[in-house]
Amino acid sequence: MRVNLHEAMRRAVEASEQARGRTSPNPPVGAVVLDVAGTIAGVGATQPPGGPHAEVMALREAGERAFGGTLVVTLEPCDHQGRTPPCSKAVIEAGIAQVHYAVDDPMALASGGARTLRRAGVVVTTWHDPSAVARGPLRSWLHRQRTGRPHITYKYAASLDGRCAAEDGSSQWISGSASRARDRLERSRIDAIIVGTGTVLADDPWLTARLPDGSLADHQPARVVVGTRELPPAARVLDDAAPTILVRSREISAVLDALGDRTDVVLEGGPHLAGAFFQAGYIDRITAYVAPMILGAGTPAVVGAGVGNIDQAHRFDCESVEMLGEDVLISLVPR
Amino acid sequence: MRVNLHEAMRRAVEASEQARGRTSPNPPVGAVVLDVAGTIAGVGATQPPGGPHAEVMALREAGERAFGGTLVVTLEPCDHQGRTPPCSKAVIEAGIAQVHYAVDDPMALASGGARTLRRAGVVVTTWHDPSAVARGPLRSWLHRQRTGRPHITYKYAASLDGRCAAEDGSSQWISGSASRARDRLERSRIDAIIVGTGTVLADDPWLTARLPDGSLADHQPARVVVGTRELPPAARVLDDAAPTILVRSREISAVLDALGDRTDVVLEGGPHLAGAFFQAGYIDRITAYVAPMILGAGTPAVVGAGVGNIDQAHRFDCESVEMLGEDVLISLVPR
Repeated sequence: MRVNLHEAMRRAVEASEQARGRTSPNPPVGAVVLDVAGTIAGVGATQPPGGPHAEVMALREAGERAFGGTLVVTLEPCDHQGRTPPCSKAVIEAGIAQVHYAVDDPMALASGGARTLRRAGVVVTTWHDPSAVARGPLRSWLHRQRTGRPHITYKYAASLDGRCAAEDGSSQWISGSASRARDRLERSRIDAIIVGTGTVLADDPWLTARLPDGSLADHQPARVVVGTRELPPAARVLDDAAPTILVRSREISAVLDALGDRTDVVLEGGPHLAGAFFQAGYIDRITAYVAPMILGAGTPAVVGAGVGNIDQAHRFDCESVEMLGEDVLISLVPR
Repeated sequence: MRVNLHEAMRRAVEASEQARGRTSPNPPVGAVVLDVAGTIAGVGATQPPGGPHAEVMALREAGERAFGGTLVVTLEPCDHQGRTPPCSKAVIEAGIAQVHYAVDDPMALASGGARTLRRAGVVVTTWHDPSAVARGPLRSWLHRQRTGRPHITYKYAASLDGRCAAEDGSSQWISGSASRARDRLERSRIDAIIVGTGTVLADDPWLTARLPDGSLADHQPARVVVGTRELPPAARVLDDAAPTILVRSREISAVLDALGDRTDVVLEGGPHLAGAFFQAGYIDRITAYVAPMILGAGTPAVVGAGVGNIDQAHRFDCESVEMLGEDVLISLVPR
């Protein structure tokens, strides 16, 4: 069945979503090859570091059907020899006639793929709305290219009145089962989770990614525990289900150093650690699971963000709002 | 143009929305008369106390076209002589052939309208989804019939992390202009606003209903100020733009007494007064304007709701979620 470019790009973004969390330091890219008849001949996504890029995966699946066809890809094909050969070369050798990509490659080393392709006679066109694609699975990688820092999402569950735990510290469960399942699955798409030692001591969480059936996901994010308090040897975050990094400091720079080249990072609290990241301006997205309940006391979601007056508020824009089971999932990005 | 019953009921609900806040102690009802051809001949809503009910307004507009026609109405027509004659009588005299209504009248005094109509030979049918209509403009009145208490909505604006004011007390503005305009207009549809003296002393609000152009609305809710602290004589709530009731007590029973037969009431805070109402189980809806900002300190939305453990949380169901300008408007109703 013939598909248009819009549908092909949608499929490419969808493919890249599956690669999210497994490609750092490379970007999670998605690619679709259409044959001369406009039928999907191959779909691919970036493989883990050292493995083929999305374009090569899609071209491999397409085989000879790529000849004279169109490549639709979320990011400009790379033009440099790294652990793998340049994608531009693979595209040209496959006989692709046209490349349609969404986001320009901001990396000096790798960019120039479009130029190389054009010189080889390939028709190169760009997507009408690159920012829509840039807000998707590529977002964290683009953020790192632009800022040199990991992309940090502050994720929390709270009552409507902003409490993460009741007065006695109890918090199981504030969010509903649909939210918790979404959160555990989302962990399989990220590089690292940050928590403070206080959260580990209070809740003894596993911080593991789990599939809907409850089993451990193939990909587990690194667990980064920040703070100077001692953890009991039996703490669940110290098990061997996922790598764990202890940062015995509350300096944000020490946390960033420990993250290395991990790009898509989720900060889960506690409230003081979150406050410090807000104050530093290092929160790149907020994902709030808001539960339809009122507590009126207990642990606030964020403490000590350096705001004294309303004019100093950390202001964001609403990226999306979704009803998820009984909860409301609100996603904010910096203004 | 011929309309179906679904469209006629939608128009009736829409008409009743316009009457909201002006009919207490009567319910805000909407009615539509369709002529024999199924065309809308009249639309009406309940007038202020002592004035005609919705059915009579719609019948008046329809005139002779009501003969042989259909009356579509949100509430079962009343059957009793109060300040106005029974609607059932007016419907029969107008020669209406069929009545289609959504919600049974729960008042012992007035109910029986359907029976009287049927005895007079009118075909009476009921709406397939009365609860959808009961959640609309009739909600507060139905609540009072059922419980004997006013319907109290806790309305507030807060940051995503649940703060109604920054650390220094500043709160102008947490919510965006679209939210504030919505809120000022909404006030023209209610019977009373409750605030604590602390809110008056901190913010010196007018608490008036305003039209989109900023002018005062025709209908102003009563301003009910609760607490034992003295107000300065120049406090804006003491001006003559709307009636003001001072309740020199923090007892909820004293507040309910002061409200009299006012039915649709909004509690605007402060946090301790809200907490007391939650603890008493007297919050019948929450309307939260959630602003896309983080404060990390300052006044919480609710304090002292009597919750120590998560199992004691005041749990609600999400009624609706809406993006309103830059904010998220979340509406919850008791579970």
